[in-house]
Amino acid sequence: MTDSRLTRQIAFVVELDKLKTVLRQTLLADSSRRETDAEHSWHVATMALVLAEYAPPGTDIARAACMLLLHDVVEIDAGDTFIHDAAGNATKAAREQAAADRLFGLLPADQGAELRALWEEFEDADSASARYAHALDRLQPILNNFATQGGTWRPLGVRADQVLGLVGRIARGSPELAAYARGLVEEAVRRGYLAAAAPPTSMSLKDGPDR
Amino acid sequence: MTDSRLTRQIAFVVELDKLKTVLRQTLLADSSRRETDAEHSWHVATMALVLAEYAPPGTDIARAACMLLLHDVVEIDAGDTFIHDAAGNATKAAREQAAADRLFGLLPADQGAELRALWEEFEDADSASARYAHALDRLQPILNNFATQGGTWRPLGVRADQVLGLVGRIARGSPELAAYARGLVEEAVRRGYLAAAAPPTSMSLKDGPDR
Repeated sequence: MTDSRLTRQIAFVVELDKLKTVLRQTLLADSSRRETDAEHSWHVATMALVLAEYAPPGTDIARAACMLLLHDVVEIDAGDTFIHDAAGNATKAAREQAAADRLFGLLPADQGAELRALWEEFEDADSASARYAHALDRLQPILNNFATQGGTWRPLGVRADQVLGLVGRIARGSPELAAYARGLVEEAVRRGYLAAAAPPTSMSLKDGPDR
Repeated sequence: MTDSRLTRQIAFVVELDKLKTVLRQTLLADSSRRETDAEHSWHVATMALVLAEYAPPGTDIARAACMLLLHDVVEIDAGDTFIHDAAGNATKAAREQAAADRLFGLLPADQGAELRALWEEFEDADSASARYAHALDRLQPILNNFATQGGTWRPLGVRADQVLGLVGRIARGSPELAAYARGLVEEAVRRGYLAAAAPPTSMSLKDGPDR
């Protein structure tokens, strides 16, 4: 019994290794290459410790860190969906639920249910711990985009208003971190790392696509 | 005050990104490349959750996971030292203490001291949480070496007795995980992923270097 339980847990642990092969859009801070999902997950889980004092009241920091360790494992099957990819994001939820079925299904049933509940809590983005975890998940790529002088923003034509939309999600978890991120976005526009916000639609028709 | 505190914390968070550029000897389970320290840290911290029921009495699982998130950050300055590299291991402690001074020194003093204490607790390998963390830190490369049919063991000529020495450290944190690792080492020898233990010295002189 114990043996087959441990065997299933080890199979899950070995399966997790594949998260090291899923590439995100975000570049490393030295611009040398794109980061992997495993690296990103480590970075944001560690940020949960370092930035704990900016978490909302009621946050369980350890629970937020555990959520962040697991939040992207479904991308082993579903792949990484770029935050500004509208088509990809339309099918993301269904692909990720199927992935959760398979991956958490590798574990003994009680434990699979427990870890899936942690992942669902992150997905729901409702509890204090989950809102804090989401804030960090949004903040980290902004830090790396700033460090790389717009490494992802510039080639993909991302604009300040799109990034500020994500900052709104940081604010749900941490007003202080959102204020910091907003300052970084403004500085990024000043330095030319990030395009200014698009004007209203009627203007942008006149101004053309390369504005 | 708050601003300069947050600025120092963010500087630490951005500095952490460098752990994604430190390569370990261990290969990914698909043998495609060596894993980074950040990926390894994510893997073992996540293992702390999955294998929690095999931790020694008195373990604080969240504390063990936090230790594992931080346990290799000193390698940003000190580099990764291969476990079977005797010369490198002789100078490792001094190099890592200097790295800890610089890295944790980036943080506000109270927080730098707190996170350094967590790292020191891991280094001391004495508390239940630290012994559990060490067990996982030793188990993960064995799992990956088995998955890659001796990916690191074969080219570097590692022998079963050397790996079994590490299994002894797993046993200090978890007899069940040590038993599992021992079974894996035996199977690895049977399959030819790992050289058998060296015979006693007097024999090996007769048998020659390529035994």
